[in-house]
Amino acid sequence: MNGWEKTVRIAIDAMGGDYAPQEIVQGALLARAQLGVDIVLVGSAEAILPELRRHNAAQSVEIVDAPEQVGMGEEPTIVRRKPNSSIMVTMDLVKQGRAEAAVAAGNTGAAMAAALFRIGRLPGIERPAIGAMLPTLKLGKRVLLLDVGANTDSRPRFLEQFALMGALYSRYVLGVAEPKVGLLNIGEERGKGNELVADAYEMLVNNPHVPFAGNCEGRDVMTGRFDVVVCDGFMGNVLLKFAEGVGLVALQILREELPRGIPGKIGIALMRNNLGQVKQRMDYAAYGGGLLLGVNGVCIIAHGSSKAQGILSAIRLAKEALDNRVLERIQQQLILPM
Amino acid sequence: MNGWEKTVRIAIDAMGGDYAPQEIVQGALLARAQLGVDIVLVGSAEAILPELRRHNAAQSVEIVDAPEQVGMGEEPTIVRRKPNSSIMVTMDLVKQGRAEAAVAAGNTGAAMAAALFRIGRLPGIERPAIGAMLPTLKLGKRVLLLDVGANTDSRPRFLEQFALMGALYSRYVLGVAEPKVGLLNIGEERGKGNELVADAYEMLVNNPHVPFAGNCEGRDVMTGRFDVVVCDGFMGNVLLKFAEGVGLVALQILREELPRGIPGKIGIALMRNNLGQVKQRMDYAAYGGGLLLGVNGVCIIAHGSSKAQGILSAIRLAKEALDNRVLERIQQQLILPM
Repeated sequence: MNGWEKTVRIAIDAMGGDYAPQEIVQGALLARAQLGVDIVLVGSAEAILPELRRHNAAQSVEIVDAPEQVGMGEEPTIVRRKPNSSIMVTMDLVKQGRAEAAVAAGNTGAAMAAALFRIGRLPGIERPAIGAMLPTLKLGKRVLLLDVGANTDSRPRFLEQFALMGALYSRYVLGVAEPKVGLLNIGEERGKGNELVADAYEMLVNNPHVPFAGNCEGRDVMTGRFDVVVCDGFMGNVLLKFAEGVGLVALQILREELPRGIPGKIGIALMRNNLGQVKQRMDYAAYGGGLLLGVNGVCIIAHGSSKAQGILSAIRLAKEALDNRVLERIQQQLILPM
Repeated sequence: MNGWEKTVRIAIDAMGGDYAPQEIVQGALLARAQLGVDIVLVGSAEAILPELRRHNAAQSVEIVDAPEQVGMGEEPTIVRRKPNSSIMVTMDLVKQGRAEAAVAAGNTGAAMAAALFRIGRLPGIERPAIGAMLPTLKLGKRVLLLDVGANTDSRPRFLEQFALMGALYSRYVLGVAEPKVGLLNIGEERGKGNELVADAYEMLVNNPHVPFAGNCEGRDVMTGRFDVVVCDGFMGNVLLKFAEGVGLVALQILREELPRGIPGKIGIALMRNNLGQVKQRMDYAAYGGGLLLGVNGVCIIAHGSSKAQGILSAIRLAKEALDNRVLERIQQQLILPM
């Protein structure tokens, strides 16, 4: 942060995810100390206050009371009936300009619904998209997959906008210098696929703002060849959940095969730590969370199982998005003829 | 096999896959000995003959010479320009009644194209489908996923027919007593998903011949909850290839994490055999191959990396399909009002 930037203020839903409010509050305080951001905690004041006191921060951090909550398993549309839920109030703060970005953990679909009800779409964006990050073959490199479920039906034009937004988020939020965008398809060649993707391909090739690198087959999603992969929300949602399932199967195979025989049992004992790492990296479900792209505000959703470090990371992403004016950049590219 | 059944005769493409013709010929001879089937080997006579001689079987097994070949990487439509390829001649034998089923290894798309050109669709089937088998969390249990790429666009009625065919193949070829059919979707509840699957759901619920067990989310494909999962060919193809990619990522994670430190290196040495098993089970690509459903003949495609045992298994599936009159059963259910 340089001296000319003003301090950004981020609204944090303190009640979402498995470890709320303890880990959320702790992560928010870490962000405040390490990133120099202002934070507003949204949720049950009775639950948040003791956590702040424990960290001697009750006098320096604002709380906005929101008595209702939206659970992980609830349908996104539930937010309509819970206007005082922490996720809705968090979005309210952004809408009212009392915060510049929203960070929440947990139910991504509900967060998207709340963002749309409260903040709305970016002008010019026809459909918002949920972006998810998946691991790749390259250590430390992730791929941004979108849309993973904001929409059930899609049109070529939507995919084009997803590609544009994905490229900007990859570059200015995730820090990829020259992002490569792929279009999820059943073959590499131009002209492959169903009508939707064949038409989208032509739009992507002809859009100078999209760093389009061609079709991405299913097996290439996680090779690291692409930084951003676009698909319709139905496909993306199935794929994301499928990845979680495949990760579980992989872990199950390890559990069944590794301990066989006495050498296996000794080996397991020796490799306890290494296996812990394997488990962590294969638990694709833990890569969850996401970016809400195309809403008229910066909204980052951490995975429901996030602890303080995960919340800190999500807040860092929100700050990157603000510092790099991602929303303005999207708008600029929408104004130009596409 | 009981005394009343006549010996079935199966045409085998001896030139497909990574280990042709040696392993194909060996697998075919195993099937002949163990399953009591007649076999016809199709391909380059010069290549097949020495293999038969090696097994002292040159006098007892027929060869049909087919000089051309279709490679793994070739587009399915190439078969049009290679009428004398082993896969096309294999299908010719079925068409002419000189064999009752076709077995090949390798390029499933090309095999489907050849089957359609030569044998055609089963009367009443609007679109054929390629079925693939994936491993599940339950040891030894697989799930039949279809369509994995015979069609790029789909209609609800096609999915209904896929479900019907998948259930019959699951029961009478794969030996699942009471197969459960799932519809791949983004949520479990009725009414979820895009127009295609929402409409297909209603058709499946109302079809008394389909043992429909509801929507199957991405994460449930490999849990073993369903025996058959239906989806459009675009989705299925992406998913199948994605599973291969995820398997590779999982193996890569093992390679990177397990050997860390001295205990890790000792552990690896101790677990060599167990890790070999893990590798084999996680190599989802090796689960490839498939069933061609909806063509007017029994066609089983083994994976391109199949050795003799894989070919034997594929021939066993073909025999099961013939013995259990799967094609007639599909026809019967199509005649009834759907």
